Amino acid sequence: MSEVVERILSNYAGENPGVIGNLRRLMHTGTLAGTGKMVILPVDQGFEHGPGRSFEPNPQGYDPEYHAYLAVKSGCNAYAAPLGFIEAVAHKHGGRLPLILKVNNSDLLAKTASPQSALTSSVEDALRLGCSAIGFTIYPGSAGRNEMYEQIRDMSREARKAGLPTIMWSYARGNMSKEGETGLDVIAYAAHIACQLGAHVVKVKPPTAHIEGDDRRKFYEKIPKDTLADRVRHVVKSCFDGKRIVIFSGGEPKTTADLLEEIRQLNAGGAFGSIMGRNAFQRPEAEAVKLLQDVMAIFKG
Amino acid sequence: MSEVVERILSNYAGENPGVIGNLRRLMHTGTLAGTGKMVILPVDQGFEHGPGRSFEPNPQGYDPEYHAYLAVKSGCNAYAAPLGFIEAVAHKHGGRLPLILKVNNSDLLAKTASPQSALTSSVEDALRLGCSAIGFTIYPGSAGRNEMYEQIRDMSREARKAGLPTIMWSYARGNMSKEGETGLDVIAYAAHIACQLGAHVVKVKPPTAHIEGDDRRKFYEKIPKDTLADRVRHVVKSCFDGKRIVIFSGGEPKTTADLLEEIRQLNAGGAFGSIMGRNAFQRPEAEAVKLLQDVMAIFKG
Amino acid sequence: MSEVVERILSNYAGENPGVIGNLRRLMHTGTLAGTGKMVILPVDQGFEHGPGRSFEPNPQGYDPEYHAYLAVKSGCNAYAAPLGFIEAVAHKHGGRLPLILKVNNSDLLAKTASPQSALTSSVEDALRLGCSAIGFTIYPGSAGRNEMYEQIRDMSREARKAGLPTIMWSYARGNMSKEGETGLDVIAYAAHIACQLGAHVVKVKPPTAHIEGDDRRKFYEKIPKDTLADRVRHVVKSCFDGKRIVIFSGGEPKTTADLLEEIRQLNAGGAFGSIMGRNAFQRPEAEAVKLLQDVMAIFKG
Amino acid sequence: MSEVVERILSNYAGENPGVIGNLRRLMHTGTLAGTGKMVILPVDQGFEHGPGRSFEPNPQGYDPEYHAYLAVKSGCNAYAAPLGFIEAVAHKHGGRLPLILKVNNSDLLAKTASPQSALTSSVEDALRLGCSAIGFTIYPGSAGRNEMYEQIRDMSREARKAGLPTIMWSYARGNMSKEGETGLDVIAYAAHIACQLGAHVVKVKPPTAHIEGDDRRKFYEKIPKDTLADRVRHVVKSCFDGKRIVIFSGGEPKTTADLLEEIRQLNAGGAFGSIMGRNAFQRPEAEAVKLLQDVMAIFKG
Amino acid sequence: MSEVVERILSNYAGENPGVIGNLRRLMHTGTLAGTGKMVILPVDQGFEHGPGRSFEPNPQGYDPEYHAYLAVKSGCNAYAAPLGFIEAVAHKHGGRLPLILKVNNSDLLAKTASPQSALTSSVEDALRLGCSAIGFTIYPGSAGRNEMYEQIRDMSREARKAGLPTIMWSYARGNMSKEGETGLDVIAYAAHIACQLGAHVVKVKPPTAHIEGDDRRKFYEKIPKDTLADRVRHVVKSCFDGKRIVIFSGGEPKTTADLLEEIRQLNAGGAFGSIMGRNAFQRPEAEAVKLLQDVMAIFKG
Repeated sequence: MSEVVERILSNYAGENPGVIGNLRRLMHTGTLAGTGKMVILPVDQGFEHGPGRSFEPNPQGYDPEYHAYLAVKSGCNAYAAPLGFIEAVAHKHGGRLPLILKVNNSDLLAKTASPQSALTSSVEDALRLGCSAIGFTIYPGSAGRNEMYEQIRDMSREARKAGLPTIMWSYARGNMSKEGETGLDVIAYAAHIACQLGAHVVKVKPPTAHIEGDDRRKFYEKIPKDTLADRVRHVVKSCFDGKRIVIFSGGEPKTTADLLEEIRQLNAGGAFGSIMGRNAFQRPEAEAVKLLQDVMAIFKG
Repeated sequence: MSEVVERILSNYAGENPGVIGNLRRLMHTGTLAGTGKMVILPVDQGFEHGPGRSFEPNPQGYDPEYHAYLAVKSGCNAYAAPLGFIEAVAHKHGGRLPLILKVNNSDLLAKTASPQSALTSSVEDALRLGCSAIGFTIYPGSAGRNEMYEQIRDMSREARKAGLPTIMWSYARGNMSKEGETGLDVIAYAAHIACQLGAHVVKVKPPTAHIEGDDRRKFYEKIPKDTLADRVRHVVKSCFDGKRIVIFSGGEPKTTADLLEEIRQLNAGGAFGSIMGRNAFQRPEAEAVKLLQDVMAIFKG
Repeated sequence: MSEVVERILSNYAGENPGVIGNLRRLMHTGTLAGTGKMVILPVDQGFEHGPGRSFEPNPQGYDPEYHAYLAVKSGCNAYAAPLGFIEAVAHKHGGRLPLILKVNNSDLLAKTASPQSALTSSVEDALRLGCSAIGFTIYPGSAGRNEMYEQIRDMSREARKAGLPTIMWSYARGNMSKEGETGLDVIAYAAHIACQLGAHVVKVKPPTAHIEGDDRRKFYEKIPKDTLADRVRHVVKSCFDGKRIVIFSGGEPKTTADLLEEIRQLNAGGAFGSIMGRNAFQRPEAEAVKLLQDVMAIFKG
Repeated sequence: MSEVVERILSNYAGENPGVIGNLRRLMHTGTLAGTGKMVILPVDQGFEHGPGRSFEPNPQGYDPEYHAYLAVKSGCNAYAAPLGFIEAVAHKHGGRLPLILKVNNSDLLAKTASPQSALTSSVEDALRLGCSAIGFTIYPGSAGRNEMYEQIRDMSREARKAGLPTIMWSYARGNMSKEGETGLDVIAYAAHIACQLGAHVVKVKPPTAHIEGDDRRKFYEKIPKDTLADRVRHVVKSCFDGKRIVIFSGGEPKTTADLLEEIRQLNAGGAFGSIMGRNAFQRPEAEAVKLLQDVMAIFKG
Repeated sequence: MSEVVERILSNYAGENPGVIGNLRRLMHTGTLAGTGKMVILPVDQGFEHGPGRSFEPNPQGYDPEYHAYLAVKSGCNAYAAPLGFIEAVAHKHGGRLPLILKVNNSDLLAKTASPQSALTSSVEDALRLGCSAIGFTIYPGSAGRNEMYEQIRDMSREARKAGLPTIMWSYARGNMSKEGETGLDVIAYAAHIACQLGAHVVKVKPPTAHIEGDDRRKFYEKIPKDTLADRVRHVVKSCFDGKRIVIFSGGEPKTTADLLEEIRQLNAGGAFGSIMGRNAFQRPEAEAVKLLQDVMAIFKG
């Protein structure tokens, strides 16, 4: 039994044993098992950005089996993907590698009235496929906010009954400047909204020092924000004073050195882990495995 | 037992025996039985383009019986059509010719706010009529994307429970140039989205060398795209590295020579087959049968 | 037993005996019993155009009983009307005069975003009232197409389970010129769509020689369209090569001579009958009965 | 297309195309495809009599795969078994060998108040497993009659909606002498009841010349009953004058010569085929295949 | 990845990935992880025999936490118990120790008309509590057979949809002598029935050489039955020729030496493992842990 994991789970007292059990499972798998930290491999870029742009950098990625294999080989806590990719590997990996079904998705082909992902799978699918959680993207800032929040209200209620936690990708988008989307105030706000919507795990982008909201500016004057670690600390604080698990995406592809420095900052700031997709699967296999292991080593401390 | 068919089906491990059995049935009917290749006769042009334009070139086509007859006579794997046409032949052909119920359809009379087909029949209809699969059209790129993806999410879940696979017609349309609709990046993307939405069989148009998306252009520089075979190879790769069945439509009516050359390219590129409507039923019967048989001969290799 | 009726019904093989039985009942009532032809009296003009405009020409029409009486007296095959009118006569006429419940209706008071009738009654109502069929209006060409097609998909599925056939009023409207609404290509297309949606009986307006669609023009060059009979022949052909019952409305009020000439043309073109409302009930009773009998005499041949 | 099969199916006009299609599929599979005759391999003896007694005579039978293999190898029309045995082979054989899910079963361990099988699987299971029909045993004569008849009333209604025909095993049992169970009057009566309950295919035991019912004796005086062929003729006549498919079980294990003579009599009497379990799978493989092929040769005529 | 586990799972092809994943999880937990063997700790004796009789021998057993602790400490694959005991530990152990919810139970206080357990929890409970399977007891031989078989038919269908396998306790009881309950023919029959009812894992008692059924006696003459290993071999064969997982209970408390000899025989006969309750938790902790580890050592080989 891991004390640190149990301490984290104590913040979810009141959740049913199914949800708790699946959160525990996520934190008891892979290299970081028992540390209270997580590195998750997410692969929805094929859907979100198209197959060529996503997989041509490392063509192994065209094969859905590769990603599950990479997650296992590198010691990830879980693998997250849309319906099709999960269907392609669940039969083989279910019961060993925790699977997270991404139940909504967006693509670059269409331009919808406001940023809003389409529902692409269901809690019923997650159960049939033996998944350990559902994943859902919200776009705080979007004019389609109300519809999205109502969708996840309903889906997470259904998921909870089935013992499945909800992992929320929270990406501010819509009523703001481009740099505002990753501004510290916005990221912290988006993360907090996800927690308030009942997310068990929140995933946001690493915040910049930019402050978007005029109404919020003065409150951010005294908040340390020079280093990423500082900013991450504020985001973690915004997630119920660290009582909700918040993890950070790697974002745009970057050099290994930059990436590992970012991870060090995340770790220093108290992040619960990282969710790293493109930066992993777009590298050649050996390099990807090495990178993920190095990332885990940092979180392991 | 056909090894090649069983190898294809092994990529669908995890599906229930009803879905597997119907996919096997599709691949064990007609001239191409057991080859792992399919030629499907689809006749939704009456609905999509109007009866005069569709059937005047060969007036036998006004009679729904003609199409089922043509599918059987030429040795097709299956026949796909909207509700009315299936209702007109299911009683006579059910149990011999696999029928695919096209559950949504569009027509040229109306101009909807964004490209989106109407739901015109149901899984319950497919069962009542003894069909072996449902067919559904998505228009990636349409502003109505979210509604469409949610519709097929629900219908394919219901279909699966009843042991029916889902065949997805994926036609990018909406937020792009006219030539973009058949550009290689767009076709590959549309095919990949269908796979991620859980399609068991994907149908797209043959791609051109055009690249539509600026964000994708550089990734397509190194992908061979000079011949149709090259481009088809990329589309097949984009369908889970060939682990999902992807077939190609014949598109605009063309000369027999052009058509057969296209089929040769499809085959060389690794396509799982062809879905050929207008180019078949708009020709005189003898010519249509000959054409379909020639097409099958190419896929048979 | 009528051979011609049974031959027509054989085109509906696969339908359940309840649906077949009601179709047979429609074709075995009134003067045209057993001929395979039908003349139906529809009275939804009160709803569609308002009572004064509809019934002042012959004030007997204000009384719902009058229409059922007229249908019986003149020997019609059936009487079709909205909920209220059917409720007013079903108790007295059920079991003798086949009743068709018009389950959606439009009115001139409102102007909806796109042409679309309101659902005004249900299959449950049709059963409660002892009706022999439901009637539903679609407006192909309307931007509200998807909603309408989905409505009739669901209602006809429910009706079929209860043994009730669906009669579809198919009136193109919306994305076209005023004369396009009755153009030959449009009428044929609208009729074909109704058949594809699973209509057992289709009702359209008599087509003019106008061709609306540029994409269809060349296909209509060789189709004979000089006489109404020619044009009706094409519409019947467009209804599954005459395998679906298609009947024609009388349209705008006109002289008796014009009307009877029109009927002669319909009959010569292979129409299965006529559905005649205003031209009948807006005339004085004796004249109306005479007219309907003359119409039937033409169809009887 | 087989005229004889279509003539048989014409007796089921009014059934939906799904049911017709599955009946056609049963009659278009294996050696007897297209002859209108059927030989079905049923293996529920493991459940009904226990594994040792059922499979020790030929231990290949312990393996569920063996039975499906035997059915295919010998050219049977279909394979019928309880849930577990069907689950064990459906993934591999679905889409090629028609499977019949036996949805109720009895065993020799228990002694129930009156003869009545337990419901052991469902229409939903049949769809999930890709079956072509459900099988149900009734025991006319049992004090539990009402419950059984109501069960099959409900299950066959659900099956029909899903396009699945119902095959009824009709074994008189309960309120009669032991020899009465196979008496001509009882077998004919049990077969007739199954037809009246809506069975699409009826399975009974070969009748003896015994007459059980005093109230029926005089009516059987003039009915020829000396040969099995005579008696079978009366049973077939009792199944709606031959308008329902009735097949006969082989019953107790017997010598090959006796068995083939019985088949000749069944065929001479107009039986639609045979359902042969123990007599097939309890023989060594080569002998079983030979026997089944000899049986088929007789029915093929 | 364990080849032996994957080979066992291949016998369940056709099951959904959720069911497969949970079976894999059971076989990848504890000391026997990856060996294809299982030792499960079941504690329903409090319910079945009363607390004093069950827990006084080792009073630690009054505390539900003790059993989960014992299962983990000794390296069991899973822990099975009724609702209350699972509720008492699921929050703490979910996600690490696979839990099996026993959904029906019997007690010694009541005497029901025929042996039949009461439904005491549900699939919904199993999901809420994060269980990996449901457990259900059938009593083949009971006059209440039909009700029991129908209950498990419905519950296992619901469980499968949620990705949960069904473990069936099959105890013949009712229409037989006391020693018949563990006779070889009866145990094999009871195990076979469970498999036919769709059990994923079957649990029976070790069979004696007694043969209960007169109708089965002659078939058991040639079956080796001198040693327990011989008899277990026949039971495994009766479970679809070893294609279903069958495990054996320890039965009445006995000496450690006797118990380990029994396990050796089970293992020699091809049993997939053991389910050992009273013999474990009624011993003092250290002795119990030692015993379970010795048992596992035997199965590990």
